[in-house]
Amino acid sequence: MLDITFLGTGSGPPTKNRSHSAIFFHYDKDNLLFDCGEGTQRQMIIARGISFMKIDHIFITHWHADHWIGLIGLLYTMNLEGRNRTLYIHGPDAERFIGDILDLDYWGSGFRVIPKNVPFEGNREVKVYEAKDFEVTAIPSKHSVPSVAYCFRERDKVNVDIKKAEKLFGLRQGRLVGKLKDKGEIVFKGKKIRLEDVGVRKPGLKVVYSGDTEPCKNITEISKNADLLIHDATFIETKKEMMHSGAKEAAELAKKAGVKNLVLTHFSRRYTNLKEIEDEARKVFKNSFASKDFMKVLVRNTGIKFGKAI
Amino acid sequence: MLDITFLGTGSGPPTKNRSHSAIFFHYDKDNLLFDCGEGTQRQMIIARGISFMKIDHIFITHWHADHWIGLIGLLYTMNLEGRNRTLYIHGPDAERFIGDILDLDYWGSGFRVIPKNVPFEGNREVKVYEAKDFEVTAIPSKHSVPSVAYCFRERDKVNVDIKKAEKLFGLRQGRLVGKLKDKGEIVFKGKKIRLEDVGVRKPGLKVVYSGDTEPCKNITEISKNADLLIHDATFIETKKEMMHSGAKEAAELAKKAGVKNLVLTHFSRRYTNLKEIEDEARKVFKNSFASKDFMKVLVRNTGIKFGKAI
Repeated sequence: MLDITFLGTGSGPPTKNRSHSAIFFHYDKDNLLFDCGEGTQRQMIIARGISFMKIDHIFITHWHADHWIGLIGLLYTMNLEGRNRTLYIHGPDAERFIGDILDLDYWGSGFRVIPKNVPFEGNREVKVYEAKDFEVTAIPSKHSVPSVAYCFRERDKVNVDIKKAEKLFGLRQGRLVGKLKDKGEIVFKGKKIRLEDVGVRKPGLKVVYSGDTEPCKNITEISKNADLLIHDATFIETKKEMMHSGAKEAAELAKKAGVKNLVLTHFSRRYTNLKEIEDEARKVFKNSFASKDFMKVLVRNTGIKFGKAI
Repeated sequence: MLDITFLGTGSGPPTKNRSHSAIFFHYDKDNLLFDCGEGTQRQMIIARGISFMKIDHIFITHWHADHWIGLIGLLYTMNLEGRNRTLYIHGPDAERFIGDILDLDYWGSGFRVIPKNVPFEGNREVKVYEAKDFEVTAIPSKHSVPSVAYCFRERDKVNVDIKKAEKLFGLRQGRLVGKLKDKGEIVFKGKKIRLEDVGVRKPGLKVVYSGDTEPCKNITEISKNADLLIHDATFIETKKEMMHSGAKEAAELAKKAGVKNLVLTHFSRRYTNLKEIEDEARKVFKNSFASKDFMKVLVRNTGIKFGKAI
C-alpha cells in the first residue's frame, strides 16, 4: 500500500496552481519525501493526512533551488515543533549542501540532521536506504548538475503453502522453506522443489522518480517493469539544451521500459492546460497522466488509482 | 499614492491561509519588498499587479528563516528571467547573510546583488535608502536576534502660490521661494513671510513596519504620527519570553505614538479567526485591523482604504 501525494508539480518559476517539486510517499509506517522545493512545508500543511514530523528520510534529486529550498523552512519548523528524531537527507553531494544549509541560520537544531551522499558508481543503480519492507535506490540521471533518479522497491512477498509442501514433498516449516522463499527452488530428498509448486511470489511495488533529466538510458534501465514512473516533462518535447524531458520522449521511455503507468511532472509555466501534455504522451503510451498539486496516486499490485489530498 | 500588499501574514509555521512574512510597497515607480519569507515569489505571482522583476530594494528585518528564505527562490527566478538590474538587499548584517545565500547554489547570478548592512547607531533612527520622493529609515527593534523596524517616509510636498506671494509681498519665483519651501519662513524686504501665508505643506506619508519585536520605545518613537503602523501581533497578549508582541500591547503602542491606523500581522497559527485579535486591539485603539494574505492597504493623505490583490 503505497500512497503518493504530489505537493509541487511546477518547474523553475512556480505558478498559481503549481508549487515547486516535492513528492510525498506514504508506505505503512514510513513517510518519505522526494525533493523539497520552496513552499513544501506549507503544501504539506494544506494537504490532508500528511504529518511532516513523521518524515525521517528526504531524498533530493539535485541541488537546483526549485528542488531543495523548502528544506530550510521544514527544518526550522521541525525544530520549532520540538522534533528530536534524527532526520536523514540523501542526495548527490548532500554533506556539502546540508552543511551549508545548517550553517545559514541563527537557530541551533534540536535534532540531528544527517546528510547521506548518494554514492556514484558509474551508471550503476546503488542502494541509498534500506527499510524492513522496501529499499530506495538511485542511479545518475542526465541534467546540468550532478543529479539522480530514485527508485522505491518494495520487497517481493513470498508465501509457501506449508500444508501443500508437506503433502506433495514431505517438506516442513524450517530452514529449507526459508531457502525456497529466497532462492525460488531447492533440492529436497533428491527432488527439485520450485516455489511455484507450493507457493506464490507477489512482486513488490516499484516506483521510479526521475527528477530533472533529459530521457536517458539509466532511467530506462532502473524503470524496467515499474508499476509507476514519475518523469520530468517540463515541455511538450525534450529540450536537450536545457537537459529537460518532453512529454513525448518520456512516454517513449516509459514504453521501452515496460512500465505500467507514467505520471508526468515538473511542468513549465507555459502550459496552463495540461491536456496537451497528456495527449502528447498518450499518443505514444496510453497510461500517461499529468500530475497536479495535491493529486494522490494510490499504487497497488492491482494497478494505480487517483485521489485528492485536498 | 502608496499601495501596500500583504503577501504573508503568518509566523513560524505557515497555515493554509497564511504564508510567511512579506509586504510589498508600490509607490509611483518604486517597488519595495519588506521581508521575504518562504513562498514569497509564488505569492507575488498569485497576487494581481505585482511584478517582482521591478523590485530593486528588499528590506529584511532580521534573519529568522520565516523572514528571508524566499530570497533564494526569488533571486533564482529573477536570474532565470534574465534580470540584469542590480538588486539591493538591506538588513542587519546583510553582507554576511547574503554572501552565505549566494554561495549556496550552483547558479551564477547574471545580475549584481548588493547587500547593504543597516548601520546600528545606538537607538537612533538611521537612513538606509533615499529615493527622489521618499526615504527608508531603520531603528533597532527588540527581538531575539539583531532586528530592525523600517520606516517609509515620503517627503513633504510644499506648494507656494506664486501669484499670491507676488501680490502680498512682491515675492517672485526664484531662490527665495525655494528657501521658503525648505525652511518654512524667510525674511524678504525686512518682512517675515511664513509658508502658510502664501502656500501649503502637505505632509508626506509615513508607514512603519515593526518586523518581529516585543513592544519597545524605539518603535513608539519612529512611529510618531505615522499614517500607518504595521506591527507584530503574533499573539493576543505579548509574550516577552518569545520577544513577540500581542495585539493589546501593539494597540497601546499605536495609541501612544499617535498613529492614524494600525494593521496587525505575523499571527500565530493558533488564531484561525482573527476577529479576536482585532477585537482585543480595538478595545485600546479603534483604528486597528488584522492583515490577511493578499489584503491591500491604499495609504493616502486622506486616510487608508482596503482592497484585495486577488
